Amino acid sequence: MANLQRLAIAPHQIERQKVYLNPEQQHYLGRVLRLGEGDQFIVMDGQGNSWLAKLQTETSKKSTINAILEKEIFIQNELPIDLILISALPKGNNFDEIVRQSTELGVTHILPVISSRTLLKPSPQKLQRWQKIAREAAEQSERQIVPIIRETMEYSAALSLFDGQTLSNYYKYICVARNNYSSLLENLLDNQLPKSIVIITGPEGGWTNVEIEAAIATGFQAVSLGKRILRAVTAPLVALSLVAAVLEKRKV
Amino acid sequence: MANLQRLAIAPHQIERQKVYLNPEQQHYLGRVLRLGEGDQFIVMDGQGNSWLAKLQTETSKKSTINAILEKEIFIQNELPIDLILISALPKGNNFDEIVRQSTELGVTHILPVISSRTLLKPSPQKLQRWQKIAREAAEQSERQIVPIIRETMEYSAALSLFDGQTLSNYYKYICVARNNYSSLLENLLDNQLPKSIVIITGPEGGWTNVEIEAAIATGFQAVSLGKRILRAVTAPLVALSLVAAVLEKRKV
Repeated sequence: MANLQRLAIAPHQIERQKVYLNPEQQHYLGRVLRLGEGDQFIVMDGQGNSWLAKLQTETSKKSTINAILEKEIFIQNELPIDLILISALPKGNNFDEIVRQSTELGVTHILPVISSRTLLKPSPQKLQRWQKIAREAAEQSERQIVPIIRETMEYSAALSLFDGQTLSNYYKYICVARNNYSSLLENLLDNQLPKSIVIITGPEGGWTNVEIEAAIATGFQAVSLGKRILRAVTAPLVALSLVAAVLEKRKV
Repeated sequence: MANLQRLAIAPHQIERQKVYLNPEQQHYLGRVLRLGEGDQFIVMDGQGNSWLAKLQTETSKKSTINAILEKEIFIQNELPIDLILISALPKGNNFDEIVRQSTELGVTHILPVISSRTLLKPSPQKLQRWQKIAREAAEQSERQIVPIIRETMEYSAALSLFDGQTLSNYYKYICVARNNYSSLLENLLDNQLPKSIVIITGPEGGWTNVEIEAAIATGFQAVSLGKRILRAVTAPLVALSLVAAVLEKRKV
């Protein structure tokens, strides 16, 4: 089963054990993966449900491929908590890579933000592109959940979303370079399992002091990711690697 | 000092407190960074030594820029041990990204290898390209050492390089997907500080059983990087993030 192809669909595409594939999905299964009548693959609804499915060419319209759900399958590769990444937008298309790798690492929510030193405001089409990347990365990494990506917002707006949360349910960290803060790993190992972990990582030029203070005032703890200076595209992955490893080490 | 530009040079470029810049370095400092006469920057010899340096236009040949070493500086952003990455070559140009991010994370040696499922044999020019990427990434991440990248070799040849090492000096791990091995993080936390850590990560299609057994027979321990399936380009980054974080957590 591990080697079957995976396809993320929307929940509304399923009706009475049948999956109604859209043209893009039909093209992907039939032309790209070259699956044929009766071939099996795994369908994920992006909300944690997976099924073994079988391709079926509809006889009424010859060009249409759909699928029959054969049985629900129970795989659990997800982290036991919500893992939320707030990431300042880096230059160029680098956020694509952040979305792809964060998804591989188990993130559940991604909030792209604009900070003082963010150089770029993304075009509205970007969100769709990131959602597509997240869907594909979730399929490839054999996850059951497709991370939710929010519209780009101001940094202060993202902070205020997590303002009211009590520390016993949410662990909130802002990663800061060139500092003497204690390491993220130490903090994670010292703590109990929370309901959610929120991680903030910065833009190329780093955070301003005002931004770091604003996060601390909202209950975020400033932490270090090590002595070397990480690029904006690398920092989220380091932070999420540590969180995932600590959570799975605990054998939850 | 943290915000001064950094330049990695070869040790032989220094003679009697003076740095003889090559044309590419002159172009970079003068045209790209737009540094002028008397401007300061940091020179690193890639072997752990750094100096504060000052640009100096030679009066005899007007087009030539050189630099005077003003004082040696002592920065220590390096991990306390050798960290060796043996990585199967991924598809396309993805090894570029592995070199760049591994360097940011503190790797000291990179050994590209060809395994059974490696799809590509690199052209001989690749090594030079990777060395350039490593040099630039070492500068940007403010390291004192530029990682050494070896010529691409067969997987079995790389294994045999570490065959004779006793476990008390070298910790050797091979990262394997879809398995029940204990996690890399657990293993790292349970152990004392070794002299070197060697990490092997696989190609897109994963390792063959024969390859995993060969590593184990050479004293490598098979470990997991988590439940989700990581791409070949992401796995080294996750493994090295964990190693660096554990080493720096110990406050060596």
